[in-house]
Amino acid sequence: MKHTSAPSVLHPQSRKKRGRPPGSLIYVGKLRQRPIALNVIAYNQDQIQKTVIHSLDELSNISTEGHNLWLNTDGIHDPAIIEAIGKKFNIYPLVLEDILNTNSRPKVDDYDEYSFIILKMLSLPSQASAGNQAAQSWQASDLKVEQISMVLGRNFLLTFQEDEYDLFDGIRSRLDHADSRLRKRSIDFLAYSLIDRIVDEYFVVLEDIGERIENLEDQLTRLHNAHFVTTHSALKRQTLLLRRAVWPLREVVSALLRNERQLIRPETLPYLRDVYDHIIQVIDVVELYRDLLGDLKDVYLSSLSLHLNQVMKVLTIIATLFIPLTFIVGVYGMNFRYMPELEWRYGYLIVWLVIIAVATSLLWYFRKMRWI
Amino acid sequence: MKHTSAPSVLHPQSRKKRGRPPGSLIYVGKLRQRPIALNVIAYNQDQIQKTVIHSLDELSNISTEGHNLWLNTDGIHDPAIIEAIGKKFNIYPLVLEDILNTNSRPKVDDYDEYSFIILKMLSLPSQASAGNQAAQSWQASDLKVEQISMVLGRNFLLTFQEDEYDLFDGIRSRLDHADSRLRKRSIDFLAYSLIDRIVDEYFVVLEDIGERIENLEDQLTRLHNAHFVTTHSALKRQTLLLRRAVWPLREVVSALLRNERQLIRPETLPYLRDVYDHIIQVIDVVELYRDLLGDLKDVYLSSLSLHLNQVMKVLTIIATLFIPLTFIVGVYGMNFRYMPELEWRYGYLIVWLVIIAVATSLLWYFRKMRWI
Amino acid sequence: MKHTSAPSVLHPQSRKKRGRPPGSLIYVGKLRQRPIALNVIAYNQDQIQKTVIHSLDELSNISTEGHNLWLNTDGIHDPAIIEAIGKKFNIYPLVLEDILNTNSRPKVDDYDEYSFIILKMLSLPSQASAGNQAAQSWQASDLKVEQISMVLGRNFLLTFQEDEYDLFDGIRSRLDHADSRLRKRSIDFLAYSLIDRIVDEYFVVLEDIGERIENLEDQLTRLHNAHFVTTHSALKRQTLLLRRAVWPLREVVSALLRNERQLIRPETLPYLRDVYDHIIQVIDVVELYRDLLGDLKDVYLSSLSLHLNQVMKVLTIIATLFIPLTFIVGVYGMNFRYMPELEWRYGYLIVWLVIIAVATSLLWYFRKMRWI
Amino acid sequence: MKHTSAPSVLHPQSRKKRGRPPGSLIYVGKLRQRPIALNVIAYNQDQIQKTVIHSLDELSNISTEGHNLWLNTDGIHDPAIIEAIGKKFNIYPLVLEDILNTNSRPKVDDYDEYSFIILKMLSLPSQASAGNQAAQSWQASDLKVEQISMVLGRNFLLTFQEDEYDLFDGIRSRLDHADSRLRKRSIDFLAYSLIDRIVDEYFVVLEDIGERIENLEDQLTRLHNAHFVTTHSALKRQTLLLRRAVWPLREVVSALLRNERQLIRPETLPYLRDVYDHIIQVIDVVELYRDLLGDLKDVYLSSLSLHLNQVMKVLTIIATLFIPLTFIVGVYGMNFRYMPELEWRYGYLIVWLVIIAVATSLLWYFRKMRWI
Amino acid sequence: MKHTSAPSVLHPQSRKKRGRPPGSLIYVGKLRQRPIALNVIAYNQDQIQKTVIHSLDELSNISTEGHNLWLNTDGIHDPAIIEAIGKKFNIYPLVLEDILNTNSRPKVDDYDEYSFIILKMLSLPSQASAGNQAAQSWQASDLKVEQISMVLGRNFLLTFQEDEYDLFDGIRSRLDHADSRLRKRSIDFLAYSLIDRIVDEYFVVLEDIGERIENLEDQLTRLHNAHFVTTHSALKRQTLLLRRAVWPLREVVSALLRNERQLIRPETLPYLRDVYDHIIQVIDVVELYRDLLGDLKDVYLSSLSLHLNQVMKVLTIIATLFIPLTFIVGVYGMNFRYMPELEWRYGYLIVWLVIIAVATSLLWYFRKMRWI
Repeated sequence: MKHTSAPSVLHPQSRKKRGRPPGSLIYVGKLRQRPIALNVIAYNQDQIQKTVIHSLDELSNISTEGHNLWLNTDGIHDPAIIEAIGKKFNIYPLVLEDILNTNSRPKVDDYDEYSFIILKMLSLPSQASAGNQAAQSWQASDLKVEQISMVLGRNFLLTFQEDEYDLFDGIRSRLDHADSRLRKRSIDFLAYSLIDRIVDEYFVVLEDIGERIENLEDQLTRLHNAHFVTTHSALKRQTLLLRRAVWPLREVVSALLRNERQLIRPETLPYLRDVYDHIIQVIDVVELYRDLLGDLKDVYLSSLSLHLNQVMKVLTIIATLFIPLTFIVGVYGMNFRYMPELEWRYGYLIVWLVIIAVATSLLWYFRKMRWI
Repeated sequence: MKHTSAPSVLHPQSRKKRGRPPGSLIYVGKLRQRPIALNVIAYNQDQIQKTVIHSLDELSNISTEGHNLWLNTDGIHDPAIIEAIGKKFNIYPLVLEDILNTNSRPKVDDYDEYSFIILKMLSLPSQASAGNQAAQSWQASDLKVEQISMVLGRNFLLTFQEDEYDLFDGIRSRLDHADSRLRKRSIDFLAYSLIDRIVDEYFVVLEDIGERIENLEDQLTRLHNAHFVTTHSALKRQTLLLRRAVWPLREVVSALLRNERQLIRPETLPYLRDVYDHIIQVIDVVELYRDLLGDLKDVYLSSLSLHLNQVMKVLTIIATLFIPLTFIVGVYGMNFRYMPELEWRYGYLIVWLVIIAVATSLLWYFRKMRWI
Repeated sequence: MKHTSAPSVLHPQSRKKRGRPPGSLIYVGKLRQRPIALNVIAYNQDQIQKTVIHSLDELSNISTEGHNLWLNTDGIHDPAIIEAIGKKFNIYPLVLEDILNTNSRPKVDDYDEYSFIILKMLSLPSQASAGNQAAQSWQASDLKVEQISMVLGRNFLLTFQEDEYDLFDGIRSRLDHADSRLRKRSIDFLAYSLIDRIVDEYFVVLEDIGERIENLEDQLTRLHNAHFVTTHSALKRQTLLLRRAVWPLREVVSALLRNERQLIRPETLPYLRDVYDHIIQVIDVVELYRDLLGDLKDVYLSSLSLHLNQVMKVLTIIATLFIPLTFIVGVYGMNFRYMPELEWRYGYLIVWLVIIAVATSLLWYFRKMRWI
Repeated sequence: MKHTSAPSVLHPQSRKKRGRPPGSLIYVGKLRQRPIALNVIAYNQDQIQKTVIHSLDELSNISTEGHNLWLNTDGIHDPAIIEAIGKKFNIYPLVLEDILNTNSRPKVDDYDEYSFIILKMLSLPSQASAGNQAAQSWQASDLKVEQISMVLGRNFLLTFQEDEYDLFDGIRSRLDHADSRLRKRSIDFLAYSLIDRIVDEYFVVLEDIGERIENLEDQLTRLHNAHFVTTHSALKRQTLLLRRAVWPLREVVSALLRNERQLIRPETLPYLRDVYDHIIQVIDVVELYRDLLGDLKDVYLSSLSLHLNQVMKVLTIIATLFIPLTFIVGVYGMNFRYMPELEWRYGYLIVWLVIIAVATSLLWYFRKMRWI
Repeated sequence: MKHTSAPSVLHPQSRKKRGRPPGSLIYVGKLRQRPIALNVIAYNQDQIQKTVIHSLDELSNISTEGHNLWLNTDGIHDPAIIEAIGKKFNIYPLVLEDILNTNSRPKVDDYDEYSFIILKMLSLPSQASAGNQAAQSWQASDLKVEQISMVLGRNFLLTFQEDEYDLFDGIRSRLDHADSRLRKRSIDFLAYSLIDRIVDEYFVVLEDIGERIENLEDQLTRLHNAHFVTTHSALKRQTLLLRRAVWPLREVVSALLRNERQLIRPETLPYLRDVYDHIIQVIDVVELYRDLLGDLKDVYLSSLSLHLNQVMKVLTIIATLFIPLTFIVGVYGMNFRYMPELEWRYGYLIVWLVIIAVATSLLWYFRKMRWI
C-alpha cells in the first residue's frame, strides 16, 4: 500500500511549487520518465479515426470540425505538452496548473467554452494475481489512486491521466461499433461514459473491501496478533481514500446536472442522474463500512480484554490453589527440634487431609464465583 | 444471518456489470432458477379479476382500460420479462436497469407518465419457529432484506420483488371484498397500502430487536463470553440495515407527499402523511436502539474490567498473604548447622505466632483498603 | 424501572395491529380493565359545570354552545368510546387511530376545524415515598411516561390519557375561581395551561435526575461495583426518554406558534412563547446531562483502571520482594551432603544479611520508580 | 466548585414554581436575606446624578425625561420590587417572571417599547487569592455564574442581578467623565458596554481554564492519582458552563444586530459587531478546550495503561526468573532416602551451574523480547 | 512547541485589556523590544520605489497617488505607530484595535473605503535545521503561528505582522521585475499573492505533519513508551491549530469572492477562486489527518493491550507450570517421621515421573488454548 496511496494522502502538495508565482506550470506528482503518447480519437456516426501523436508539432493538425474529438494524454510529467494543448484548445492557465497538480480534489469548474472536471480513478491493479494471495484473503489489497482531469468542450473532450493504465478499454472498443450509442450521440455522452466507468469501478473496490472486512471478521478469533491491527488500519485508510474521492464527486455530478453552461445535452441528463444515484449508493456503503470497521475494532478490543480475563483467571485459580498448600508443606519442612506434629503417627496423613480440604473448599469457592 | 443480510450489505453491486454499456439489463442479485409468475389483478369497485401469466405472449392481453391493474412480478432474474413489461408499459430503460439491481437505495423518481419507487422490505422469516429458540432469546434473529420496486401509473401499479415471499397477502384478501376501501379508491391507494404494510413490518422487526436487546441486557452478567459480542454485533448490524432502509424512505414518502406529478389523489394524502409519521417514529426508535446498544457495549466493557479487577484482587490477596509466610517457613527449613532458633524450646510456637501476626496485619491492611 | 419506561421504549408498537387495514381502531397500549370515566367541564366567565359521563348515550347531551368545553377521557382502552367521541366531535378516523396508539411521537397536525396535538407526560409517581429511599439516593427513580392527546377546537378541548393519574388537579381547581385567567380567556388558554403544566413537570424530572447524578458522583469512589453501572445506565435511559419527549415537542410548540389555523388567540401567543423558551431550556439541560453522564462514565472507567493499577502494584511489590528471598532460603534447604556454607560458623547470619541487602535494594528500586 | 456552579447546572428550576399559574412572580434562585438597593444613574452629556433607592415609594420620583436612565437592581429576591419596577416602566408580566427565574437561558425578546435581554455573567471571584494556591495551580478555580437581565428602552436601561458583586465598576467610573463616549452617546451604548464587559470577562475565565489545562498537562506524569480525574472533570464542567453561556449569547447579539425594533442606534452597531466577533472567538476557544481536554483524558488513560504494562513487566520478569529456580532448589530439599545427586561430590556446584544457566537463558529471552 | 503555539492557543486574550473602554489601543500580544520598521513599496508598471520609515513624521510623506502602495509594518508592539497609520489612512478605531489583538480569528470586514482582513501565517522556522534531527523524525516540529492583518484599499495595501520573519521575500523580489504580473496588475493582485503565499505554506506544514504521522506509524512498535504519546499529542494540537486557521479563512476568501465592495478587480477573481480551492483542499487533508491520528491512537492503545496480554501469558504459563511442581517437591521436603514414600526404593524416580507428567499435561493444555 505504501507506494500507491500513502503519498497522495500524506503529501498533499510537493514543496517544489512553494513560492512560485501562481499560474506557473510545474508538475507536482511523482517524476516519471516516459515518452509522451497523445491518443486522438475523432469520430462521428459515420466514421472513426484513431491517431497517436508523438510530437507537439502534430498537434496543429488536429481539427475539431465535423466530428467529436477525444484527446487522451497519458503522461502529464512534461508541462510543455500541457501548455501546447492548452494553447491549441484555448484553455485557461490556472486550469492547466490544476491538471498538473495530481493532488487536486474532485471538482468541476465552468468556463465559457468548456467545463473542467477533476475525478479520482480508483482501481485494484494487483487484483489479477489476487488468486495467489487466497491464503491471506483478509489482508488489504493495494489500492491505486489516479487523477483524471477532463476538459469538456462543445465537441471535444480532453482527458489527462498520470499513468498509461486506465479503465477505458471497454469504452474504446465500443466506440469502434458504428451502431453503439457512443457513436450516435454527442461528446458529452462520452464524458458521461468515462465518469460512469470510474464510478462503476468504485463498486469493485467497495466489494473488495467488503469481502476483506468479512474475512477479517471470520478470522478475528484466529489471529490475536498484530496482523489484525495492520489490516484493519489499511482497510480503514482505504475507506478514507474512497470517501475523499466520492464525497466531492457528488457535488461535481450535481453541478453537471444543474448544467448551467448547456454543455450536457438534455438526453444525456437521465444517464448522469443515474451516475448520481450510484454515487449516493457508494457514499452510503462507504459510511456503512466505516461503521462496520468501527464495530469490528470494538469487537477486537473486547476480545483482547476477554482473553486477558481468561488468562488471568487461569493464573489466579492455579496460584490461589497452590500457594496456600505450598505454605502448609513449607511449615512441616522446618527443622525445629521441637515440632510435635512431626512425631505423630498419622501426622503425614493428616497434612494430606488438610491439603485436600483446603483445595476442595477453594475449588468450591471458584465454582461459586463461576470461574470454573 | 450470513445468507440473508450479509451479501446485500457487503457486496453492493456484482462484478458482472462492470464495464458494460449503461442501460444494459443484467440482473445483479443472486442467481435463482425459478419459472416466472406474473400475478395480474384487475379490479374496480364492481369486479375483480385475478390472472397468473406464465409466458411473455400473454402480456399483450393485459389492458389498463376501465379498471385498476396491479401486476406483481415475483422473480426478476430473467431480464427478458422485465424488458417485455417495460415495453408494454412504456418504461424507461434506466428504470428497468434499476429494477434488476437489487442493491439500489430506496428512492422515488418522477417521470411524465409514472413514478418509480424503490423500497426495502424487511421481515423475520424464521419468526414462526422462534418459539423453539426460546432458550436463546438473546440471539439475533435472521433478518430478510428484499427489494420492492414499484411503478405507479395513472391506473396501473407494477411491483417487482426478488422472492416469492411477501407481506401482501392481507392486502390481496382485502381486495376481494367489494366494500373495502381498496376497491373503492384508485390505484394510488393500493400503492399506499403496500408501503404502509412494509413500514408496519419495520415495527415488528424493531420490536424483535428491542426484545433481544432487553434479553441481552438481562443476561449480560450471566454470559461473560464471546456470545455477548457476537449477538451485540449482529443486533448492531441489523440496526444499521434498518437505518439504511428507513432514512432514504423518509425522503421517498416526503417526495410523494409533495406530489408534483399529481399521481397521488388528494384523498390519499392524509394516509401517506400517516405513513410518514410512522417512518419518523421508526427512525426515532432506530436511533434510540443505536444509543442503547452503544450503552450496552459500554456496560459490557466495564463489566469485563470490573471482573478483571475482582479476579486480580483475589489473586493479590492470596499471593500477598502467603508469599511472605512461605518465606518465613522457608527460612527455618534451611539446613545450617548453627541456627540458634531451631534449638529453642518454643521456637516452633514463636514462628506460628509470627505467622499469625503477619497474616492478621495483612488482612487488616486489605480491610483498610476495602479489598475484603 | 422495568415496568414503566422499558416497554414504551423497547416495544414501539404492538404486533396486534400488523396487517390490519389503516384506520381500524385498535388500542395498542397495555391492556387495562377499568370502567370509562369521561370528565366534562363546561365553563365560561360566569359559570362552570362539571359532569362525569359513564355511558356513551350521555355523550349526545353535551353541547359546545355558549361555553368552553373540556372533555377529559381517562382510559383509552375501549375503542368504542373513542369512536363515539370522534363521531360526536367530527374527528378524522386517522386521528382517532393515533389517539389509541400510545407510542406515538409528540406532534401537531392541523385540520380545518381543530388541531391534533400529542404530548408525552413524564412524572415521578414514587416520589412521595422517596424519603424512604434516602439511603439509596443515587439510585434512579421510576419514571412514568404517559401519552396525552389533545384535540383543540374553536371552543372545545378533548384530552385523552392512558391512566387516571395526571398533573392537572391544580388547573382544575383554578378553573373553579371565577376570577382566574383560565375562566376569563378562551379554550386555547386552557390548552396552553395543560402544556405548560406538563413542561413544568419536566423540570421536576430533570431536577431529580440532576440530584441523582450528583449523588452518584459523590458515591463514585465508595461503590466500585455493579451498582454504579446499573444506576448510570438507568439515568442515561431516562435522559434518552426525556430527550425523545422534548425534541419533537419543540417542533409542536413551534408549529402552534406559527398558528396557521388561527386556533390560538393572539393574546395566548406570548404565553406559548414562554413555554417554547422552557422547552429550549429543558433540551439544553438534557444535553448537558448527557455530557455529564458521559463524563461520569469516563471517570468511573478510569477509576477502575486506577484501582487495578494499585492492586497490581501491591501484588508486584510483595511478590517481587519475597520470591527472590524464598529462592535464597530454598537453596540452603537443599540436602546435598557437601554444601560448605552450611558448615560455616556464621552461615546463617550471612544469609540473613544477604536477605536484608536484597530486600533493601528492591525497596530502594520501588521507591525510585515511585511505586511506594 | 460545589457551592457555585453545581446548583445552577443540576437544578434547572426550583420545585417551588411547579403547578402555579403562569405569570406568578416567584423567585426561583437561592434564597438570600439582604435589603434592597436600587442604584439609579441618570445622565446626559452635561450632567450625571447618582441615587440609591431603598423603598418602593421613591420609585415614582424617577423620571426618564431629558436624560438616560440606568436603574440597577442588585437583589431580585423580593418579587414586590420587581413588580413595582415592572409597573413603573410598563413591563410585561412574563418578562418579570423571567427576571426572577435565575436559571433562564441567554436570549433576547423584542417588545414594542423595549428589548428584554438575558445574559450570564461568569467570573472568578477567588482569583484575588489565587496566588496562595500557586502550589496547586492545576486545580480548577471556583467559577461564579450569575444571571444579568436587561430591559433596554428608548432612553432607559434596567439591569437586574442576583448578587451585589458585578463587573461594572469600570463602566460606572467612566460614566463620571463628561467626555467619555458613554456620556456622549445614547443609552444603547451603555447596554453595549455592559455586554462587552461581560464578554471580556469570558476571556479571563478562558485564560484561567487554559492555564490550568496547561498545568494539568505538565503535572500529568507526576500525579498518577485521583486528583487528575477530579480536576479534569471540574475543568470539563466549567467548559460546559461557558459553552452554555456563550452559544445562546451568539444568537442574542446576532438578533440585536438585526435590530428590528431600532432600539440600537446605527453608530452603536459596529461596536456590537465587534462583541459578536469576540463571542465567536470565545466559542472557538471553548470548542478547542473541549478537544484539548478530550485529548488530555486519552493521554491520561494511555499513561495508566502504560504504567500497568511496566508494573506487570517487572512482576513477570521477577516471577518468571525465580519460580523455576525455586522449583529446582525445592527438588533437592526433598528427603527421599535414595537420591543419588545428593551424594555426589559436586552436586551442589552442579545445581548452582544449572541455576545460573536457567537464569541466563531467561534473561536472554527477556532481552530478545525487549522487556529489559 | 511551548514557546510558539501554546500561548496563542491557551491564552486567547491578555488580561491587560480587561475593563478598558472599547476602542482603546492596547497591544495584547507578547511584549517585544524592537525598533519600528515600516517598509514602504510604491510601484506601478513603470517604476518601483522601496523606502524604510523609522519615525512617525516620515509617514506624512507617503502619497497614494499615481501608484500602488504597500506599507508593511513588522512590529505592532507600539500602539502609537498603529494609531498614526490609522489616522493617515483614515482607518476605523475598532479595526486598529483588532490589528493589535494578535489572537483574533481570521475574518474579513468590509468598510466603505477598504476591506480589513485577518489571516494566520503558519510556518516551520526550525525546518532549516531539520536535517540535524533526522534521527528523531517522528517528533513534532515547532510550528510558528503569526497573525497577518491586511487593510486593502483602492490603491494601497497595509499589512501588519508581529515578527520580522515572513514568507513574502519571493513576492518582494518578483515585484522588482517590471514584467511580472504583480507590477502589471492593481493592488488587489498583490493582496491575492500574499494570501496565496500563506495558503501555499499551509501545504508545507501539512506535508511536514503528514511525514511525521507516517514516521510515527513506522516507529509505533519500536517505541512503547511515553514518546509516542507526547508526539501524538503535539501533532494533534498542530492539526487543531491548522484547523482553527483554515476554517475561518474559507469564509474570508468566500466573502472576498462575493466582492460586494468591488475592491477586487474581476480579473483577479479566478486567482482567488484558485486559492479557495486550495483552502478546501487544506481543510480536507486536515480532517483526514485528524482521522489518521485518531486511528493511530487506537492502534497504539490496542498494541498496549496486546503487549499486556503477551506479558501476562508468559507469566501465567511459567507460574501455572511451576507452582504445582513446587508444591509437589515441597510435600517431600516435609520432615514427618512416618512418610512411607520417602523410604521407597524408587520414590525419587516416581516423583520425577509425576513432575514430568504434570508439566506435560499443563503444556498440552496451554497448546490446546493456543497460548504457546
